[in-house]
Amino acid sequence: MTWNRSHLLDLQSLSVAELTAILDTARAFKAINERSIKRVPPLRGKTVVNLFVEPSTRTRISFELAALRLSADVINFSAEASSLKKGETLRDTVRNLESLNADIIILRHGASGAPHYLARFARAHIINAGDGAHEHPTQGLLDTFTIRERKGRVAGLNVTILGDILYSRVARSNIWALLKLGANVTLCGPPTLVPKVFERFGCRVIWDLQEALKDADVVNLLRIQHERQRVTMFPSLGEYTALFGLNQARMKWVKPDALIMHPGPINRGVELEGDIADGAQSVILEQVTNGLAVRMAVLFLVNGGKAAELN
Amino acid sequence: MTWNRSHLLDLQSLSVAELTAILDTARAFKAINERSIKRVPPLRGKTVVNLFVEPSTRTRISFELAALRLSADVINFSAEASSLKKGETLRDTVRNLESLNADIIILRHGASGAPHYLARFARAHIINAGDGAHEHPTQGLLDTFTIRERKGRVAGLNVTILGDILYSRVARSNIWALLKLGANVTLCGPPTLVPKVFERFGCRVIWDLQEALKDADVVNLLRIQHERQRVTMFPSLGEYTALFGLNQARMKWVKPDALIMHPGPINRGVELEGDIADGAQSVILEQVTNGLAVRMAVLFLVNGGKAAELN
Amino acid sequence: MTWNRSHLLDLQSLSVAELTAILDTARAFKAINERSIKRVPPLRGKTVVNLFVEPSTRTRISFELAALRLSADVINFSAEASSLKKGETLRDTVRNLESLNADIIILRHGASGAPHYLARFARAHIINAGDGAHEHPTQGLLDTFTIRERKGRVAGLNVTILGDILYSRVARSNIWALLKLGANVTLCGPPTLVPKVFERFGCRVIWDLQEALKDADVVNLLRIQHERQRVTMFPSLGEYTALFGLNQARMKWVKPDALIMHPGPINRGVELEGDIADGAQSVILEQVTNGLAVRMAVLFLVNGGKAAELN
Repeated sequence: MTWNRSHLLDLQSLSVAELTAILDTARAFKAINERSIKRVPPLRGKTVVNLFVEPSTRTRISFELAALRLSADVINFSAEASSLKKGETLRDTVRNLESLNADIIILRHGASGAPHYLARFARAHIINAGDGAHEHPTQGLLDTFTIRERKGRVAGLNVTILGDILYSRVARSNIWALLKLGANVTLCGPPTLVPKVFERFGCRVIWDLQEALKDADVVNLLRIQHERQRVTMFPSLGEYTALFGLNQARMKWVKPDALIMHPGPINRGVELEGDIADGAQSVILEQVTNGLAVRMAVLFLVNGGKAAELN
Repeated sequence: MTWNRSHLLDLQSLSVAELTAILDTARAFKAINERSIKRVPPLRGKTVVNLFVEPSTRTRISFELAALRLSADVINFSAEASSLKKGETLRDTVRNLESLNADIIILRHGASGAPHYLARFARAHIINAGDGAHEHPTQGLLDTFTIRERKGRVAGLNVTILGDILYSRVARSNIWALLKLGANVTLCGPPTLVPKVFERFGCRVIWDLQEALKDADVVNLLRIQHERQRVTMFPSLGEYTALFGLNQARMKWVKPDALIMHPGPINRGVELEGDIADGAQSVILEQVTNGLAVRMAVLFLVNGGKAAELN
Repeated sequence: MTWNRSHLLDLQSLSVAELTAILDTARAFKAINERSIKRVPPLRGKTVVNLFVEPSTRTRISFELAALRLSADVINFSAEASSLKKGETLRDTVRNLESLNADIIILRHGASGAPHYLARFARAHIINAGDGAHEHPTQGLLDTFTIRERKGRVAGLNVTILGDILYSRVARSNIWALLKLGANVTLCGPPTLVPKVFERFGCRVIWDLQEALKDADVVNLLRIQHERQRVTMFPSLGEYTALFGLNQARMKWVKPDALIMHPGPINRGVELEGDIADGAQSVILEQVTNGLAVRMAVLFLVNGGKAAELN
């Protein structure tokens, strides 16, 4: 076992051995989640705080369930109605939570680097649940877990990530994990959302959808965040769908055994046609299931758990 | 034991034996709730999700406590700040919850039939906590439980339901349960809120309050939802109170052993005078207590619990 | 052991023996919170409701954690989206919670005396978590606990409370506890916020900051609630800071072993300079830690717990 970190801040700084340690531990937890009684004791008597300064129901629930199934006490602390609104600094909020003996703080924050900042002084374990456009490490891990489980390996696979790469923390965390584990990563989307600069990370950048899809073993479609102000980046949602939406006609360009992935929530008919989301190649709901297992593994490992303790 | 369903969607489709099975099981749970330590293990390690697309504090809390006392893990998922707001379909939300291994989903939704729709594909057990103006089955059950416990039977009793029948899911669920169990049901209120068409269900419809009250063994007063836009249905709240509000003068028309019921929250002085709500004939707070027992019974039964396992 | 009350409504009505009983019990719970597994069984199977009609994240979380660590089931009931908004009276809300077998109700309410009102009829144990400008007894207790632990005693100490005394429930609860336990209490701030009438309680009122600080063993700085409408009370925040903010220059007036306290959340640079909040004399985070222990003690005692049961 090679995990010795007390935080999970990003995937960029993890070694291949550390990434593999999480993925292997998650496999054990996935089996636990399939049991009729889905509770194990590793975090009994521990306090886990979901500190979500940016709202997110699905990630919060996934972490909350992960913590509950490890028998932790879970507190939800959302930005609304919180002392952060009364002018308290994030540092003071976290120090207060630590003074309440919080053992693990799961942070979702709009500012890139917020969890790294906390980790410089925090005694609690910090888990990054998404920081600005920087990273969303558990999403990168669950996507990688899903690919590895379905394809038996990551090394040598062609993974195409499609959509709004520029501001996507999901894309960044995927890129780091996939490149470290030896995949070939292709990024595709409108040039305004997929700048050439990503080639410096070691990715291939192409703006032609057919070219991006044709050799892919995995197609990971990012959500078009139409509720945010992205109007300057492409003319309209309809335009995006017309040029880059994945539909049945374009599925002919995709290999019949390629996996279709999406971090959710899906905009059916925008970046992805509903039939494909529900189709045989889609592993979208498996990603959700695997996310729970990955988050249990991360909570377990940052708290000092050793894989040998499981089963 | 005759319960073999994996969902509770409505009371209309239940047999007398099924209704009776829930009411009998609830009696066992009521005894548990009177203990000093109010926890039993049937749902240990199970995940229950309160999916409240329409807000409701009291029903949500009643279900949450019911699930906690059965030792389940409970997740609250409200419409605000959820992925439903980001354009996700209800179907996708539920499939995501199932992918997180949710065992039971309790749905409150503004659209009639929403839980039936989910039940067509869901692997999780679906419990209807109120769907539009259609049904609120646990409310119908708890009202029936209360009548049965206090009066020793339901068959042959005269039950008058008073108020806004037209849009009331509470009324509909009460009507189905009471008629199946052999009660005589009278509906009363302003003609705009109590249309004649309800006679087709087997109810008596009368618009004269004194007539509706005089033989009643039970008077169930519905809440006038003055916070919603019902202005077109009657001239004013004051007018409603003047014509149909239950006050001490009108209590003379009510039999001295008739039960006064109300699903809450009460508008004191509108549909019901405060003294009557707090009086000897009122069983309003017993309804709340019984609601918890009924919800424990429903959670227990849809999850496959058998009455013989209790005590 | 001299605790026989079933509610905690205020500190004004407590005897010295009762105050001491809570502080002594809290000491035992503080030790429990330092353990790796922070759960003890006294409230197992009990239902605790956080009824926060006025929002407060930090006090709510502190009570929630206190209840969880005593193994209670905790329900959060906030004013938003609750039946209180539908016109239900506070009395009916509480009777409903009791009908759900709530054992302990923790009330935060904007109206002074709200918890006393509830205690006149409630069967559940009522704990005041702040009522209007009246009292915030657990805050007064945790401040007193912190002073006693750090200084070894309360009697004979000079405690200066600085800031917005007029509308502060924190100040009032501190004053009662400190005076009963034999401290000398000085109040200081702008005359509009610190009226002379407080001398009748037995406090010293002075408007000169240097004079108020120079003999203090403890300086407790209240938060300037700039998010509320207090504009008529002093010209501007800057003016307050210029005249009464505690900064390094003014720290020379403070004894080197005086404790610096603040109930949080801190407005860094307004009532208190950040360096002092983080400095060697500050016990601000210890107050948070002690708050949890005090709240566990209060929950334990009102529920009938006896100190001898601990350890």
